[in-house]
Amino acid sequence: MNEDRDEQQIRDVVATWMRASAEGDVERVLTLMAEDVVFLVPGQPPMRGREAFAAASRGMAGKVRFEGRSDVQEIQVAGDYAFCWSHLSVTATPLEGGEPVRRAGDVLSVFRREPDGRWVLYRDANLLTAEA
Amino acid sequence: MNEDRDEQQIRDVVATWMRASAEGDVERVLTLMAEDVVFLVPGQPPMRGREAFAAASRGMAGKVRFEGRSDVQEIQVAGDYAFCWSHLSVTATPLEGGEPVRRAGDVLSVFRREPDGRWVLYRDANLLTAEA
Repeated sequence: MNEDRDEQQIRDVVATWMRASAEGDVERVLTLMAEDVVFLVPGQPPMRGREAFAAASRGMAGKVRFEGRSDVQEIQVAGDYAFCWSHLSVTATPLEGGEPVRRAGDVLSVFRREPDGRWVLYRDANLLTAEA
Repeated sequence: MNEDRDEQQIRDVVATWMRASAEGDVERVLTLMAEDVVFLVPGQPPMRGREAFAAASRGMAGKVRFEGRSDVQEIQVAGDYAFCWSHLSVTATPLEGGEPVRRAGDVLSVFRREPDGRWVLYRDANLLTAEA
């Protein structure tokens, strides 16, 4: 089933993203998103484009370690697009001391199939809030 | 172009939703969502199903007036699914006195085409936050 294969490829993108983030491998994470990706978060203007993500991530490099876990709730493939609902928990630990911050919540994402067949993140609505 | 027609129908659903909400017409709003709709908001568990939305809305009936404006940023149709990114502003005015509360932010939604051809809301990630 092609749809099953697409779904597995999207799960692989999510898993690779979490692993590369934990390893601080920004360059790897950048390969997993569309050039014109848009990230939506509460209380801030949309972050548009891979370069904006790269700049924000490089600003954090060496300062914070991220560890996260993504539980995929649903993936639906439709042609060259797919949406994915997942529950995400992320712990950000300052490397120069300070308390780790844990955030958790739902994420609704749209993935797009690139001309070379790879699935990449295209739109991302991140509903995470800080946990006590 | 069928895709243009689909996009227009989804815009109509959004516009009808805003108007029916402002009129307090919960029954009309309920016709615009799938029975197994899921609403995602920050800091709360997912609200699953049309019945849950109906119960929450009926609890507000006669207590709050909603006025909102939705600016659609993007609609992408893919088969029987579509995603829509919009910027939403909502003012909730307590009918028995008290200050209006204004909330604004982005919404990422997935729409589904029902067997009868109508587009309905299927997944909704609401990133609105309170404004000063």
